[in-house]
Amino acid sequence: MNSPALLDSLEAALESAVARFDDGSATSEQIRYHFGFGDESRRGKRLRSRLVLEVAEEEGAHAPDALDAACAVEIVHEYSLIHDDIEDGDRLRRGRETVWSRYGLAHGINAGDALCSVAYLTLLDGTRVPAERKVAMNRVLLAAHLAMCGGQGRDIAFETEARVTMEDYRAMIGGKTAALFGAACELGALAAGASEARAGAYARLGCAYGVAFQIEDDALGIWGDSATTGKPCGADLTKRKWTFPVVWALDGPPSTARATVAAAYAPGTALSGPEVEATINALDALGARDAAVGAARAELDQADAVADADGIDPSGRVRAFFRRAARRVA
Amino acid sequence: MNSPALLDSLEAALESAVARFDDGSATSEQIRYHFGFGDESRRGKRLRSRLVLEVAEEEGAHAPDALDAACAVEIVHEYSLIHDDIEDGDRLRRGRETVWSRYGLAHGINAGDALCSVAYLTLLDGTRVPAERKVAMNRVLLAAHLAMCGGQGRDIAFETEARVTMEDYRAMIGGKTAALFGAACELGALAAGASEARAGAYARLGCAYGVAFQIEDDALGIWGDSATTGKPCGADLTKRKWTFPVVWALDGPPSTARATVAAAYAPGTALSGPEVEATINALDALGARDAAVGAARAELDQADAVADADGIDPSGRVRAFFRRAARRVA
Repeated sequence: MNSPALLDSLEAALESAVARFDDGSATSEQIRYHFGFGDESRRGKRLRSRLVLEVAEEEGAHAPDALDAACAVEIVHEYSLIHDDIEDGDRLRRGRETVWSRYGLAHGINAGDALCSVAYLTLLDGTRVPAERKVAMNRVLLAAHLAMCGGQGRDIAFETEARVTMEDYRAMIGGKTAALFGAACELGALAAGASEARAGAYARLGCAYGVAFQIEDDALGIWGDSATTGKPCGADLTKRKWTFPVVWALDGPPSTARATVAAAYAPGTALSGPEVEATINALDALGARDAAVGAARAELDQADAVADADGIDPSGRVRAFFRRAARRVA
Repeated sequence: MNSPALLDSLEAALESAVARFDDGSATSEQIRYHFGFGDESRRGKRLRSRLVLEVAEEEGAHAPDALDAACAVEIVHEYSLIHDDIEDGDRLRRGRETVWSRYGLAHGINAGDALCSVAYLTLLDGTRVPAERKVAMNRVLLAAHLAMCGGQGRDIAFETEARVTMEDYRAMIGGKTAALFGAACELGALAAGASEARAGAYARLGCAYGVAFQIEDDALGIWGDSATTGKPCGADLTKRKWTFPVVWALDGPPSTARATVAAAYAPGTALSGPEVEATINALDALGARDAAVGAARAELDQADAVADADGIDPSGRVRAFFRRAARRVA
């Protein structure tokens, strides 16, 4: 598990990566605002960058040598959040105004674009590996970035779909969430000098984590404590987001509970508070919560199998880290 | 001057770069829509990518060896257009709906993000140079991308400024426009194997072109033929854009004409058609049109001086290309 000192180093490295490319423009100010450096309550969980560091250490590197790769992954994630907040119309994140809400739509888009380039500059400038390896690492992050956008595009398209199948849902989260988790693990291995094949096995481990994380996140959005998640409970339902519990619940034979969920997800429906509660009760009655917990566990088991079969994560620290650090459905 | 066959190769390379990363998602479809491949009337001028090719050939490369770098520059430009159209609220580009107008705001942002990663993947995967050189080229494009966002952020911030000085304006276009022109020339030289110092001289040449191009573009937005520019005449004035003629006109002693321009740019002003005409007449009376033409020429002269002093563009083909290809104020 990353030591508190290492987490402080990570935070300092993120702040210094952002400061290094500060040109005194309004855009740089907006980026600093987004991160809210110095205020721990506004800090993200840094799960993706910590995975980079865990894998790098497991593969024999000193964590500081993987800090720039870790920052690059985290910055890609943070830039995507700035844009996601616009795409979702969210005005609050980590307890305060989102960038677009505070500075306007145009600045919000532009600040995200700027931050995106900072991620790759950090990877290129800071990472101390041979140039061939640097190119390979850059490609891994870019490919995950592209897959993330493909998945996000599918998620946006779902908003106007009458029905989303489990296959559609899996393809969506495979891009939107799992690709960057996969890249995080792969980059940690590449930064440590692992072979590309071995790094590829870590990528599969990371992808399984990403899928598990997203399914849990979906369940937490419905049954989690909103004080912990930072999101109002049921927000995904009122936004008609196609989350795992909903997709799973609608994939079965007709029943009263299923009809309640289907009615809530009929196109153009605006749910009242009591209707949100009724939908959650129907999801519970159908067993969607247990199904989500089970599906997330199955992904973690698959991750274990990947690690065993490929002989990666020999000490088990990456697996232990992920199981401890990822949020759990209460 | 690039041959018609080379321009066709460029177009084919752009289409194939986009096709290579097509994952069948809605996002990929939106990117194809933006480019409008196959319809020549919707093709951009490709000025930036053609500069890459001109410089590469001048520096002894075969143009096909620089095609991927040329595509990368052009794709960064095209992705920025998808986002600019949202930031400016523009619903039309090259005679048809912009991506966000057709597919919605969320898809518009996301498709731009995806296309951004395609640019760098194209540079990394296609360019046939040693890895060290590839890293250097990637860094050049990323730094220009970041500077472009910094400049765009300044331009957005201008919208609510009571007054913009010539120094502010120069800093803005230096990022928003000149940085990518500079990167285009620098990448052409790097792709051809020029030294980093020599490529840096080409970057200065390209920056001067970028400044000249933006000043001309500003003048064309006011006095150009809207059938040629594709933009309604005076649109920059009604949007209260701080263009060269306006910034220049307001930078002098009080006069009736200057008061007319100042009134048009008072914060919160919405100009009627006759007021737009009166503002243009006032700019003419002040000599703002000649000033813009003169300033653009001065940049081109400076570009000549850079080229002579640094011994780049020995045959003069890059300079000849830019003077022919760039649009002229009528």
